[in-house]
Amino acid sequence: METAYFNGNFLPKENIRISPDDRGFLFGDGIYEVMKWYGSFFFDPESHLARLKRSLGEVRINWPAADSFQSFARELIKINRLEDRQALIYMQVTRGAAPRNHSFPDPEVQPTVYAFAREINPAKSDDGTGVKVLMGRDIRWSRCDIKSVSLLANTLSFQGAHERGMKEYIFVRDGVITEGSRSNIFFVADGILYTHPESEYILSGVTRKNIIRFANESGITVKEQPFPEKDIGNIREAFITNTSAEVTPVIAFDTMIVGNGIPGPVTLQIHKKFLSEINALKG
Amino acid sequence: METAYFNGNFLPKENIRISPDDRGFLFGDGIYEVMKWYGSFFFDPESHLARLKRSLGEVRINWPAADSFQSFARELIKINRLEDRQALIYMQVTRGAAPRNHSFPDPEVQPTVYAFAREINPAKSDDGTGVKVLMGRDIRWSRCDIKSVSLLANTLSFQGAHERGMKEYIFVRDGVITEGSRSNIFFVADGILYTHPESEYILSGVTRKNIIRFANESGITVKEQPFPEKDIGNIREAFITNTSAEVTPVIAFDTMIVGNGIPGPVTLQIHKKFLSEINALKG
Repeated sequence: METAYFNGNFLPKENIRISPDDRGFLFGDGIYEVMKWYGSFFFDPESHLARLKRSLGEVRINWPAADSFQSFARELIKINRLEDRQALIYMQVTRGAAPRNHSFPDPEVQPTVYAFAREINPAKSDDGTGVKVLMGRDIRWSRCDIKSVSLLANTLSFQGAHERGMKEYIFVRDGVITEGSRSNIFFVADGILYTHPESEYILSGVTRKNIIRFANESGITVKEQPFPEKDIGNIREAFITNTSAEVTPVIAFDTMIVGNGIPGPVTLQIHKKFLSEINALKG
Repeated sequence: METAYFNGNFLPKENIRISPDDRGFLFGDGIYEVMKWYGSFFFDPESHLARLKRSLGEVRINWPAADSFQSFARELIKINRLEDRQALIYMQVTRGAAPRNHSFPDPEVQPTVYAFAREINPAKSDDGTGVKVLMGRDIRWSRCDIKSVSLLANTLSFQGAHERGMKEYIFVRDGVITEGSRSNIFFVADGILYTHPESEYILSGVTRKNIIRFANESGITVKEQPFPEKDIGNIREAFITNTSAEVTPVIAFDTMIVGNGIPGPVTLQIHKKFLSEINALKG
């Protein structure tokens, strides 16, 4: 039986029920965070906590107990007997339940905090041969730097890719490639590793940040600058990154093959460095 | 005790609990609709039903019983003893509950349908002297034509206006004034009534559509075209429209007074025509 976390308590998930007045349900008025458990530790939990606090601050949800995230996440792993597995912790915080009104509840109400653990089956992940992605218009809002649960644009976009047999939808805004519906994206062109700079148009991925560090440590030149869609022909390698799947090689943009249609050497080098760091942390 | 509607049943509202797996809660993956009850009838229910079906179609939520909207809305009015009052029906449909995944549930699950009735206290509405509004950047997504519950951009924007003592936040995108966070907006300049044309940047308001009809019937020239923010100095009158508040005169954009700082003659003429039609329908 799956046990989840709800407003300070650990409960069978089927016993958790959200109020129809919850602003998460009525307005998508909340934020979320995802951490990965590697059998004995969370990877870079400090960055996830920092991003959580930043999201809360940007949408002005006051949750004084944000620092408890890592400890209840750890408890979810334990209670659900996932300690020796790979798993994700999903956690969301909404502005709480109050009669429907666009303005924030006044007086303030308790935020709603919900979290669950989910095992990752490594066998179900990408086999390393790379994925195809669909590229198209970015219909999202202008504050993609906030990890908000108002994700309808993301689900509709992702579904469009999914139905064409592709594993991610990559957004293009104002002529430049920004990121995926649930990942950041990197390109190798002219021997340089490109990714969109931090801005209101991308989520600052924890994996993205670590990948940039790995690249720098490996002597790879990294340029955090917008990559124009029109220069897509120069791309020799591409990969997407996120917390759950780490590094996933991209071998085609729809029908257009990237490089040789197989994961490239820079992609493999960086993924290897990521896995080395994970193994070192396993001790 | 308030009775609400939930997936085909009428229940005490406090007994309704949403699953934490509901895609409304996890992704803002749903749409909504609002109708107004005028003591003995809903105003223009056909337009609300048509818009509901359009929203469902655009986000591809399959709810075969959409036509039941008007009948359960009527029942909510009756059960909650609002038959001789003014009231709003709020109704939302989400893609249903399923383990969290960006792609749509496969196989499809039943959508979640939730609705409630809320009395409108006419005494609490605008007293007719007009309101001040805040104008600023449109941070919303590019599909504002869909009446989606992914409304975080709207709540944050509205709250910004609310805290400055203003009654609406008016969005400006690409240099033109589009609409409010929960209303459409009209301007009178050079004797012409302007409002943003139907597009992906505005919600096609049912009240907006009827106001255009009233203006045409009154011999007022209407231009559905983008109004540039830089021409704001030419505006002699402005008003916002929505289902609950009908027509609300705007007397200032932040510190800038509109016209003479009182509701203008075109605004009053159109509002009067609206009220005449309501009274005629009351029979």
